[in-house]
Amino acid sequence: MNVDGVPTRTIRLGQDGLSVEVLDQTRLPHTVAWRRLETVEDAAVAIRTMVVRGAPLIGVTAAYGVALAMREDASEEGLSRAVAALAATRPTAVNLRWALDRMAAALRRPDVNDRVAAAYRLAGAMAEEDVETCRAIGRHGAALIRAAHDRTGRTVNVLTHCNAGWLAAVDWGTALAPVYAAHEAGVPIHVWVDETRPRNQGAALTAFELGQHGVPHTIVADNAGGHLMQHGRVDLCIVGSDRTTATGDVANKIGTYLKALAARDNGVPFYAALPASTIDWTLQDGVAEIPIEERGAEEVTHMTGRSAAGDLVTVQVSAPGSPAANPAFDVTPARLVTGIITERGIAAASRDGLAELFPDEAGR
Amino acid sequence: MNVDGVPTRTIRLGQDGLSVEVLDQTRLPHTVAWRRLETVEDAAVAIRTMVVRGAPLIGVTAAYGVALAMREDASEEGLSRAVAALAATRPTAVNLRWALDRMAAALRRPDVNDRVAAAYRLAGAMAEEDVETCRAIGRHGAALIRAAHDRTGRTVNVLTHCNAGWLAAVDWGTALAPVYAAHEAGVPIHVWVDETRPRNQGAALTAFELGQHGVPHTIVADNAGGHLMQHGRVDLCIVGSDRTTATGDVANKIGTYLKALAARDNGVPFYAALPASTIDWTLQDGVAEIPIEERGAEEVTHMTGRSAAGDLVTVQVSAPGSPAANPAFDVTPARLVTGIITERGIAAASRDGLAELFPDEAGR
Repeated sequence: MNVDGVPTRTIRLGQDGLSVEVLDQTRLPHTVAWRRLETVEDAAVAIRTMVVRGAPLIGVTAAYGVALAMREDASEEGLSRAVAALAATRPTAVNLRWALDRMAAALRRPDVNDRVAAAYRLAGAMAEEDVETCRAIGRHGAALIRAAHDRTGRTVNVLTHCNAGWLAAVDWGTALAPVYAAHEAGVPIHVWVDETRPRNQGAALTAFELGQHGVPHTIVADNAGGHLMQHGRVDLCIVGSDRTTATGDVANKIGTYLKALAARDNGVPFYAALPASTIDWTLQDGVAEIPIEERGAEEVTHMTGRSAAGDLVTVQVSAPGSPAANPAFDVTPARLVTGIITERGIAAASRDGLAELFPDEAGR
Repeated sequence: MNVDGVPTRTIRLGQDGLSVEVLDQTRLPHTVAWRRLETVEDAAVAIRTMVVRGAPLIGVTAAYGVALAMREDASEEGLSRAVAALAATRPTAVNLRWALDRMAAALRRPDVNDRVAAAYRLAGAMAEEDVETCRAIGRHGAALIRAAHDRTGRTVNVLTHCNAGWLAAVDWGTALAPVYAAHEAGVPIHVWVDETRPRNQGAALTAFELGQHGVPHTIVADNAGGHLMQHGRVDLCIVGSDRTTATGDVANKIGTYLKALAARDNGVPFYAALPASTIDWTLQDGVAEIPIEERGAEEVTHMTGRSAAGDLVTVQVSAPGSPAANPAFDVTPARLVTGIITERGIAAASRDGLAELFPDEAGR
């Protein structure tokens, strides 16, 4: 999608064709800067510190991380070490594991005579695949937005939580792909952007990317969504997912579950948009089984932004000495999810619904 | 409650016996400072800019505001002007209107021969009444916390939203009065403090007052409550109320409704603690009838805190140029409220429940 009017992706090969450049998301929305990754450690740090984030982009960055590792040590042992190091960076997003498994399986084949070249080729293919997957999610989801417009005759109000836009993928995004597709098709649309505490990915990233692409939107505190739905100001919710069970439970950014409850209470359709790579076919019960990452307390107690003087400043907003807890995700049970928008179409949030669209995966 | 080990109230008469001093809540938690109110305009500004906030404290401050007005102009016209100016400061809290009506009714009596003295007397009495009312709310609510402890044998985890502690009243608070009463009675208790965006009253005020009084607590993002409840980490929720309908619908800080939905979905009892002065006996349908204050966008887009250098700095946390909306309250329907803790006991959240405790008010 566009930044300063120029179509941009979140990750690209450097001029040398070997290093990898990623848009530094810790510096958005204030500064558009690229960070160069030269080693697998650089890639692991970028994922852990959320220079890159979002399930699809984490997967593609990890794939390139393996390619960077192969340049240093293309042995069987080097491959295992790289996969282990990258897998340890974030515990909730299952795409990470999916991307690493795919890289490892391809590179361990006996007929691979140049692991470095093969790794770059596969990482590049996975990036292109991600773009096509997200484009397809956008096409299927846009039909829902168009249908809402046809029904009401007015601007469609979509509420989203966190950032599952192009910044969370390579391009297009997951939850925002339908928004971009509908916008480009001329359907009048407005997005309520949940701020998404504690890391403010909504206010900082979703608002940034919608603004840069010219999509009308309004930031609200995470607390506001229920009130907006009570007053008929939300036509549908679309969120992303970091891990989805075979039964349709959706792990996504902390607070997603609260919006799903409000949607249910007010008859607002609630969709999760996700690539099949986010589905963990081994899990049945999301609340019980999906590990939830606990992040540092300072993400809650401190906040970084731009001062009137233009500097980036970190300030403490909480009472000094008070502890904070910071679970990063929650699980929305399938019973609260109207449908799951995937690259193959829209599935019911249930074992049967997902299996019908993905008989190849579900049956494994 | 205690500040630096010294019992403190939020509002007091100045040394001269005429000016009024309030704890400046816009400077907490970083600085404990008092602000002197000399005129009715000072009082109106203090309420509007949230130097004082919380339904009970707004009411008492408005009462003192009338007393300050009488010093300047004790005529019938002066009284009407003062009441109108103060009533216009905040639209949602009904205590404001209740306190002003009470002052006006008392001061308009023909036998009042010194309106200034009478106004100070009544404002002082209302402050003392508020303390006793909150103490009674604490006594009734503490029984719920003790019962939870008796049932589980372990520390009771209470979740609260926004600040309905002593900083929102004159002393004790409403939602936190049961917490303080249980803590003083030796019941082991821990409070999950919702940060409460956009103004962070939880992280800044609730955490401050619990910390100063030695009550164990942990700050969490507003998004986290549903996840905590899904995992059995909340025993009960207690919130305050800015306006309550005769049918038990509760208007409180934006986001309260989302916590009530999560409590219902997880079988966690959800209580609102409030003085009867918060009940608007003329209203039947909170979502349709209670006016919701819209506050400035900069409360969402900007945040103030203390920098590493110790200065208070305001920073922009959102994407530049993106608009924000800021509804300040939402309404939790009575069907989601387990009970209403009042100074007369605990009522069912229904017309019958409230009328049974307050036959005098309900029948008017």
